[in-house]
Amino acid sequence: MSTKSAIAPLDELARRIQDEQLLAPLWPEDDHIALLDQTRLPFVRDVLEIHTPGEMAAAIRQMQIRGSGAIGCAGALGAYLAVRQQPDDPDQWEQAVQALREARPTAVALRRAVDEVIGAARASTVPLEAAAAAAAAFVSRQVEMERRIGRHGAAAIPDGATVLTHCHSGGLAGAGYGGRALSVIRGAREAGKQLQVIAQETRPYFQGARITAWELTQLGIPVTLITDGMAGAMMETGRVDICVVGSDRLAINGDLANKVGTYLVALAAREHSVPFYTATTRYNVDPASRSGDDIPIEFRDADEVLFIGDQRITPEGVQALYPAFDITPARLLSGIITEAGLFEQPFEEKLRRLLAAGEEG
Amino acid sequence: MSTKSAIAPLDELARRIQDEQLLAPLWPEDDHIALLDQTRLPFVRDVLEIHTPGEMAAAIRQMQIRGSGAIGCAGALGAYLAVRQQPDDPDQWEQAVQALREARPTAVALRRAVDEVIGAARASTVPLEAAAAAAAAFVSRQVEMERRIGRHGAAAIPDGATVLTHCHSGGLAGAGYGGRALSVIRGAREAGKQLQVIAQETRPYFQGARITAWELTQLGIPVTLITDGMAGAMMETGRVDICVVGSDRLAINGDLANKVGTYLVALAAREHSVPFYTATTRYNVDPASRSGDDIPIEFRDADEVLFIGDQRITPEGVQALYPAFDITPARLLSGIITEAGLFEQPFEEKLRRLLAAGEEG
Repeated sequence: MSTKSAIAPLDELARRIQDEQLLAPLWPEDDHIALLDQTRLPFVRDVLEIHTPGEMAAAIRQMQIRGSGAIGCAGALGAYLAVRQQPDDPDQWEQAVQALREARPTAVALRRAVDEVIGAARASTVPLEAAAAAAAAFVSRQVEMERRIGRHGAAAIPDGATVLTHCHSGGLAGAGYGGRALSVIRGAREAGKQLQVIAQETRPYFQGARITAWELTQLGIPVTLITDGMAGAMMETGRVDICVVGSDRLAINGDLANKVGTYLVALAAREHSVPFYTATTRYNVDPASRSGDDIPIEFRDADEVLFIGDQRITPEGVQALYPAFDITPARLLSGIITEAGLFEQPFEEKLRRLLAAGEEG
Repeated sequence: MSTKSAIAPLDELARRIQDEQLLAPLWPEDDHIALLDQTRLPFVRDVLEIHTPGEMAAAIRQMQIRGSGAIGCAGALGAYLAVRQQPDDPDQWEQAVQALREARPTAVALRRAVDEVIGAARASTVPLEAAAAAAAAFVSRQVEMERRIGRHGAAAIPDGATVLTHCHSGGLAGAGYGGRALSVIRGAREAGKQLQVIAQETRPYFQGARITAWELTQLGIPVTLITDGMAGAMMETGRVDICVVGSDRLAINGDLANKVGTYLVALAAREHSVPFYTATTRYNVDPASRSGDDIPIEFRDADEVLFIGDQRITPEGVQALYPAFDITPARLLSGIITEAGLFEQPFEEKLRRLLAAGEEG
């Protein structure tokens, strides 16, 4: 096997990422997959060379790539690497992708992507080419889905608007166009609208300060950072026209589980009649959750709150709590922006139709 | 003049601080005023020796002592130091306290305290003793005021309660009992109630993580730290029984200007039917502000948001905003806890009577 990928679909994908100025979390290179280490952004732009599905699994486990869309892409390209290792020995593929499948237990898209690529290889007489085509198609479909979110969401953004967002729901968490929330912002800009963004820093992990702010500067969109307690002051002083956030998970009634802090923004937005939207996809809608009451709030390691890097920020003896997300009730949402359209209240039937529709919406 | 303070009122004050376990920001020692450097807490307990009113002014300017109550005490004890330098030469006193008066332009209590001590010295045939007595009396009155806030506020705190607070409104910002908000918590504990506190870290300056958490650990009250975006998740999961915050400034209708982030807590509290109180004193009520609309939100140096220590937290090119406080409308307050009682809605007449009453309330 050549060390060069002469695989046309992957070359095409790499060109597309370049030509469309996608902020891709990973992309094909000649003999490997390049992966931008998100744990080091924005201060160090470190690009890892991923040659095997095992290396891809490790990057996922170490959070060097994160976000449900991005992890799906990593699964697709990682499965392609498994086929590439032993293109003529299908029995090896399943073992090669085992660690990849298990790299993030909650990431449904990861396993779906792996299955799709391995399945395409198995069904083909030219498995390597088939795996490459399936992986490239998976990523391209994600990009298209993000572009559709952008087009539907753009309609909600007034020209000249200041958009407040929380946490990171951007291209690096997706396929590179803009993920969920930042696809709306990018879509509005590409629709010819002027806009600027207020990004909340998003403690304890600073995803807003680090990643969202970085993506927006890369896109040339002006961005102003605030802390997570400042949304109320911003709205009281008339500085916010619209709020757009991503969604970790949507109950079927539209109740939104998203990074902790989202709910407070939504409460302030309602108080000041500022529209509040979430951007999402069918893959974030959980039909098993009838409402937010069915979504237990996950508590993570309290040390994330107690320490910044190695530095403890509070005396010994102080405990901490780290709820990873909060629940914003559907009634606080002005609308839900999806790849299939902008849904207004009530949401449940529209979300059910979204789930029932095929992959391409 | 002796290098030892044989001044009985100051010795008495020092004993009181010790006996009553006050978390005093400063206290008399034999030949100087000791001042706890709050910029280094909680990791370094550095006590400065203040010998002159100029040194006191410098400590105020450098924020080594902060909070309106504490700065008043610093003014009183600093003015005493001015008299002590030249007890027999009243013409020198005014010049000696000039820098002290101007150390914090917005601190009304500072100038009132200086005037009170210098005035007492001028009116007496034993100026040093009179200055010492006036300074000690000023601090003692502050302690008593805080104790009264504690007694009135204790009635609002259920036994076994979890109290959420924001920023720092404690003894180190006052005379040592508990300032405003933490006087309520201390008062409830001294009334025999069990309680625990959830403290918000209070970005960008971390007053909650550093100072509030430190005071509570000193008092042996269990404290759990959260970030400023987590109040909603805490209330959604039933973890908060009551909120108590301080107040930088109250409009006469009860609209509250307090550290940015307060308003979001109040919005979440209303949504979850959690009582929300502010603790305050007559000195925080501004009769010139008819409502919060009359209180302009002050924006401070954006670098406070962009940097933690020397470390920039966001890419170059990103701007920031730092509104120092936000406005919580009076309608979101369950009550206002003052040295003269716990006021329920409507507030305006009660606040006017508080202002009209004498110093001792």
